[in-house]
Amino acid sequence: MSGFPEIETLSDTESLVHYGQDWTRFWTPSPAKVVFPRSTEEVVALVKWARSNKARLVPSGGRTGLSGGAVAAAAEIVVSMDRMRTLVELDSVEPSLTAEAGMSIGEVQRLAAEAGLYYPVDWAAADSSQVGGSIATNAGGIRVLRYGMTRQWVRGLEVVDGRGEVLRLNRGLVKNNAGPDLSQLLIGSEGTLGIITQASLALTRPPPEQSVLLLAFADLAAIMPAFTALRRALGLSAFEFFDRRSVEQVAAHADQTFPLDPQAPYFGLVEFDNPGGERESDALAVFEQLVEDAMVSDGVLSQSAAQAAELWRWREAISEAITPRTPYKNDLSVRVSKVPGFLAALDDLVGRHYPDFEVVWFGHIGDGNLHMNILRPPKMDVGDFRTACDGLSPRVFDLVRSHGGSISAEHGVGLLKRDYLHYCRSPAEIEALRGLKALFDPDGVLNPGKLLA
Amino acid sequence: MSGFPEIETLSDTESLVHYGQDWTRFWTPSPAKVVFPRSTEEVVALVKWARSNKARLVPSGGRTGLSGGAVAAAAEIVVSMDRMRTLVELDSVEPSLTAEAGMSIGEVQRLAAEAGLYYPVDWAAADSSQVGGSIATNAGGIRVLRYGMTRQWVRGLEVVDGRGEVLRLNRGLVKNNAGPDLSQLLIGSEGTLGIITQASLALTRPPPEQSVLLLAFADLAAIMPAFTALRRALGLSAFEFFDRRSVEQVAAHADQTFPLDPQAPYFGLVEFDNPGGERESDALAVFEQLVEDAMVSDGVLSQSAAQAAELWRWREAISEAITPRTPYKNDLSVRVSKVPGFLAALDDLVGRHYPDFEVVWFGHIGDGNLHMNILRPPKMDVGDFRTACDGLSPRVFDLVRSHGGSISAEHGVGLLKRDYLHYCRSPAEIEALRGLKALFDPDGVLNPGKLLA
Ligand SMILES: Cc1cc2nc3c(=O)[nH]c(=O)nc-3n(C[C@H](O)[C@H](O)[C@H](O)COP(=O)(O)OP(=O)(O)OC[C@H]3O[C@@H](n4cnc5c(N)ncnc54)[C@H](O)[C@@H]3O)c2cc1C
Ligand SMILES: Cc1cc2nc3c(=O)[nH]c(=O)nc-3n(C[C@H](O)[C@H](O)[C@H](O)COP(=O)(O)OP(=O)(O)OC[C@H]3O[C@@H](n4cnc5c(N)ncnc54)[C@H](O)[C@@H]3O)c2cc1C
Repeated sequence: MSGFPEIETLSDTESLVHYGQDWTRFWTPSPAKVVFPRSTEEVVALVKWARSNKARLVPSGGRTGLSGGAVAAAAEIVVSMDRMRTLVELDSVEPSLTAEAGMSIGEVQRLAAEAGLYYPVDWAAADSSQVGGSIATNAGGIRVLRYGMTRQWVRGLEVVDGRGEVLRLNRGLVKNNAGPDLSQLLIGSEGTLGIITQASLALTRPPPEQSVLLLAFADLAAIMPAFTALRRALGLSAFEFFDRRSVEQVAAHADQTFPLDPQAPYFGLVEFDNPGGERESDALAVFEQLVEDAMVSDGVLSQSAAQAAELWRWREAISEAITPRTPYKNDLSVRVSKVPGFLAALDDLVGRHYPDFEVVWFGHIGDGNLHMNILRPPKMDVGDFRTACDGLSPRVFDLVRSHGGSISAEHGVGLLKRDYLHYCRSPAEIEALRGLKALFDPDGVLNPGKLLA
Repeated sequence: MSGFPEIETLSDTESLVHYGQDWTRFWTPSPAKVVFPRSTEEVVALVKWARSNKARLVPSGGRTGLSGGAVAAAAEIVVSMDRMRTLVELDSVEPSLTAEAGMSIGEVQRLAAEAGLYYPVDWAAADSSQVGGSIATNAGGIRVLRYGMTRQWVRGLEVVDGRGEVLRLNRGLVKNNAGPDLSQLLIGSEGTLGIITQASLALTRPPPEQSVLLLAFADLAAIMPAFTALRRALGLSAFEFFDRRSVEQVAAHADQTFPLDPQAPYFGLVEFDNPGGERESDALAVFEQLVEDAMVSDGVLSQSAAQAAELWRWREAISEAITPRTPYKNDLSVRVSKVPGFLAALDDLVGRHYPDFEVVWFGHIGDGNLHMNILRPPKMDVGDFRTACDGLSPRVFDLVRSHGGSISAEHGVGLLKRDYLHYCRSPAEIEALRGLKALFDPDGVLNPGKLLA
């Protein structure tokens, strides 16, 4: 065995537990050690060492992932990017920012704002999630409706692939058609093809002042027609959805009271451009029309940025609020036009066969993306709970398949959805994915067992 | 040899010439035959037949490509998509259009417009280029500045890969992170990995009324600062650039007279939102400032949609106007912030070492993309001309490399740039591209010799 490269390493129990898990709680963290490279060269040395020593590496970002992608539960070496967080360049001509992979997305957003610019990809865990992790998962979030997924903002990647080769992909170019763009392959590859060491992200101009409209829907059937009407009238930056149970969960932890009738079955949070309040009357007009059409029963329009942020809390705090209940998450998507039929079929499935399951629904429903969170009964053991949920999954995924959807809209496959991949990828596709893995990581050193069994 | 599948076939000389070439004129078309599949099943039969008979297929769209990607000069079988142009679905909930690969982009734009929607990717050849060809080349065009390349609009692909497998990739979903997105790999793969048989393209809402400002620049150095000032003041849908020679070439074919002083060295065409003329005073203010700063010497603002279209002609007609001169095209890009230095270095190179070359410059310079067109001297033989240009290419590409740019911003690699790929892709990247080719087209039946030697 050739000597392990000289890289900062931790192997105390606390660090192993801390760095051996992401936001999921279904596996017992047990990495062999945690290493903290400080440069691309150190990452190369590590991968080369791993290749010749048949070691297994788990690329690790902010560990906010929701599918176990960064979990090390089988004596792997965790490669944390925590020591690579430097800003490399901020280009204001064609607005973009180049940073090492360990910089947090919150930091990217702040640096952009300081330069009078804006990084629009955002979600509740942005302050902990890293540039590398967000690209490796192609993170979506709350403003996909207007700004797309992380993919749309990646202008260049530096990657150490599983061969130990440094690939400098696309190098910040707006246009580059000199052959297939390999950076596209790394986006969403969940640490299985390469370790991202640096990235260039496009920035944009900040949007005008936003207002938030919080709505109570009369029933499930009202949601999509209301979305279409609101989008047509206001253009939208975000359209988020959550159910009564979500509000109950957040309320149990919050010191504010929910501003609408909490007995309504479903709620929607709508964000739109409203510079100087100029769209307020449009917003009220469409709201009144929705009330008249009996789709919406109640609503409140933010009167300040502070109030908008307060309203957002009711949506953004859901994930954290339900964490103590070890939620079993399904992050599903279908084409937007198929959402109503899909929602009704899911609702029927759960209500009929699993009436005891407490399900919290929320999601970025304007993108066809629905988060279905099953809460663990407070006294049930985590293992038993997971087994029960695993029993439901095939039925849920059968519905996904018959509606032409995806079993993972934005959270990725990781360990949690790995065995269900065939519900939305064909055998020929999975064979191609295996071929890609063999090509970029011939010895299987990068995140083995994740994404593909 | 197993029997050739029953597919409409042409092999008369006229058809062979017609379907054996794209917009380039450096190769003598000589396909073995031209086939016209009518269904995905026929394409599968063809690929399987080719695999077992070691035949070579050239996927063929509208043949408006500018790098020889659709050229068949070595007895290949041309697979024309001309008989697969059907509209499959138009979804107005999440606006998108699904069509067979042979539909023209002009038709996509018209169908979108009929539904009150908009397909924003556009360029002078859009009426002939096809859905499949535009995706296989990741076409850019005149509105990349606002709307991005074709990649950004692809929501789903049906592809027959070189294994003969039908891949139905992403299936129209807005969000889908169930493993790496293979459709991204097909985008820009120039017919070397798969034959695209069907695609879903996202549509958007039509932009507000546009106005066009045509400007004469004082010198090279003025262009990028003017771009920055105009973008800041007006937001922009397009910023196109062309030189005095471009105007001369178009003027020789046009029946209009150029509305500005044709002696200015460089011109810019700026398009921006101007609903009801409300931005006219902003446009005039920034124009006057640019004149005062001696960056701009002359200008005209369109007063109607018809006049805007007339102004656009001066930019859009360049490619066609220079065609009789068999232009040797270089489609270069660098990061936008590097454009001024790169332009100056190129100008110096050509002026110093190739003073006799007549070069026409134009491009989508707001994206860092510059088209350098060397015109064949009217009496020079095409072969001799190409040899002379091939001598210049390494020097041009050295500059591209030292400025961190791409040898093909939007036209692709095809035959024309194949041997220069290493100027912007590393050996490790090229090895990976070869690996991808072997994975999706193990017998090398799809467009052999294109993109990779
Ligand atoms: C409260 C909360 C809300 C969330 N909301 C959203 C949401 O709205 N939308 C959404 O998309 N996601 C959401 N997430 C999920 C998560 O935040 C994102 O997936 C995020 O992008 C993960 O980033 P990370 O740095 O924490 O990655 P990690 O969890 O550390 O890792 C995720 C995956 O990426 C790999 N990886 C990490 N760093 C690298 C690297 N440098 N190179 C290669 N591979 C690497 C890991 O191996 C793993 O497979 C949410 C999470 C939480 C906790
Ligand atoms: C006047 C003019 C102006 C232009 N302006 C621009 C511009 O501004 N921006 C720009 O990006 N391009 C421009 N182009 C180039 C060209 O129009 C685009 O590259 C276009 O996308 C090619 O489409 P096509 O259908 O004609 O493809 P073709 O020329 O037929 O083929 C191009 C490549 O795609 C492959 N291909 C074709 N169909 C398929 C399929 N169904 N499946 C798999 N592979 C396939 C071919 O094998 C070939 O490698 C211009 C061309 C002209 C003539």
